[in-house]
Amino acid sequence: MFDKVCLIGLGLIGSSLGHAMRRGSLAGEIVGYARSAATRAKALEIGFVDRVCDTAADAAAGADLVILCVPVGVCGELAAAIAPSLKPGAILTDVGSVKSAVVRDVTPHVPEGVHFIPGHPIAGTEESGPAAGFAELFDRRWCVLTPLPGADEAAVARLEAFWRACGSEVERMSPEHHDLVLAITSHVPHLIAYNIVGTADDLGTVTQSEVIKFSAGGFRDFTRIAASDPVMWRDVFLNNKDAVLEMLGRFSEDLSALQRAIRWGDGDTLLNLFTRTRAIRRSIIDAGQDAPLPDFGRPHGKGDKGRE
Amino acid sequence: MFDKVCLIGLGLIGSSLGHAMRRGSLAGEIVGYARSAATRAKALEIGFVDRVCDTAADAAAGADLVILCVPVGVCGELAAAIAPSLKPGAILTDVGSVKSAVVRDVTPHVPEGVHFIPGHPIAGTEESGPAAGFAELFDRRWCVLTPLPGADEAAVARLEAFWRACGSEVERMSPEHHDLVLAITSHVPHLIAYNIVGTADDLGTVTQSEVIKFSAGGFRDFTRIAASDPVMWRDVFLNNKDAVLEMLGRFSEDLSALQRAIRWGDGDTLLNLFTRTRAIRRSIIDAGQDAPLPDFGRPHGKGDKGRE
Repeated sequence: MFDKVCLIGLGLIGSSLGHAMRRGSLAGEIVGYARSAATRAKALEIGFVDRVCDTAADAAAGADLVILCVPVGVCGELAAAIAPSLKPGAILTDVGSVKSAVVRDVTPHVPEGVHFIPGHPIAGTEESGPAAGFAELFDRRWCVLTPLPGADEAAVARLEAFWRACGSEVERMSPEHHDLVLAITSHVPHLIAYNIVGTADDLGTVTQSEVIKFSAGGFRDFTRIAASDPVMWRDVFLNNKDAVLEMLGRFSEDLSALQRAIRWGDGDTLLNLFTRTRAIRRSIIDAGQDAPLPDFGRPHGKGDKGRE
Repeated sequence: MFDKVCLIGLGLIGSSLGHAMRRGSLAGEIVGYARSAATRAKALEIGFVDRVCDTAADAAAGADLVILCVPVGVCGELAAAIAPSLKPGAILTDVGSVKSAVVRDVTPHVPEGVHFIPGHPIAGTEESGPAAGFAELFDRRWCVLTPLPGADEAAVARLEAFWRACGSEVERMSPEHHDLVLAITSHVPHLIAYNIVGTADDLGTVTQSEVIKFSAGGFRDFTRIAASDPVMWRDVFLNNKDAVLEMLGRFSEDLSALQRAIRWGDGDTLLNLFTRTRAIRRSIIDAGQDAPLPDFGRPHGKGDKGRE
């Protein structure tokens, strides 16, 4: 599909893209760059890249497709670094969880004749690093592309075909709308997960050992998300401030109403909400966006040490 | 271990107890009661009870161990209903997620010579009903007993042995401390999960179909908990009001501080929290309280329709 693909960043998403390209034979050559020499060596050892380079510019030189797989806070500086070596006609894309800020930071550096098409695969796990990736990560998940006004349709279609070949479904929307949608489906959920794990860690009346022992009551679900990459998520919140604060405001308003219902013993308000939310999970399962298994398919009993 | 065990309530916990007792051959006879005739018939058909009765009093008559597996809001009335038929020396326990309120509601009805020992297995899934149970639900999970002052030590030890034989680890604490611990490890997590799912359902700017499609960004994790039994959870919040409001107050304070950090672009505060929370998940996995698999062990790729 592409003669040479360059992965800038070899963490969970970069490595999964490498494996997915291998699975589908989508690239003649996969060249990788990561800031850390240890990461580059690990990527080569695992084998999801054919070659690594010591600089991003060297890795990007001559590539038909360059994918920035780094925290959104460093997309701009990496775009600046690789700009001089980008081949005319190349597609430059990214996988960042925020799109307006990436457009703002990357666009000024994109040379004439290079097609910059921002993207975001809605897929991941709480793991990070080059050993965390796997070919199936994008299967049946959605990838959002936010092409800019005047984008080359052939290039956008080619990038769409690439993501479909990686297993994804593809949808297009504006960067601004993407950032609003992701604020509620991803960013605020992460923020409140980080927050409750922090709150539980700070209590004097309940010990940390009690929190851990009795976490199967619900708390442990939040710790998965709260184990996600700290730098990536710091950058998300710093770069999608307005949409996150807007959605967080709505969340807090609704929470105050629930708090009031509890204080006044208003069981009907609670029961109505709790009944309504049940239907949404059903829709998510029907849409193929979560496993139809109780407890996410967590192993129980003797098997609960899992695959480790 | 017991000649006759009576399960009052045949939902997720009642049915799982039935299966666990079968697995360990813990009961000579298991007799069940549920309000709905359909549930009673289903329980018999599945076979985790030997016999069902049309009234709770008939089911409890002559039992050595009676377990209330019903929402905490109806424990009191069921205790009143079965009190006349409880056998002297019998152990009466429950599985409610709140303990002080159950103690308050049940104790007045307990006849002289019957050992009432409140309990709470910290285990469950988002499923409900008699078909949801399985024998392994309690394996490696904690069961908290909150014996009252002056409780008969032999009876408490016997109930502890029962839970261990069902696969649990057992800890004792006061009802008040239990309610505080569970407020942060279970009740507030459920409340904020219900809340964010409700918030996402109510937005005008982001459609419900977008929320569902892009839920793999984090949101879907919350929908599992928010699909839990509505009546059970209504009763939890109505009956553990003070501890829930206390913990919710702390959660909201912490969230305001995070909101402020985002508004002012304070990346260090965010990074510090996000790094700290990562360690807590590791402790939970090390303590055997969650699967050591990425993404809870959710199936990916072609297998992601799971066991269905």
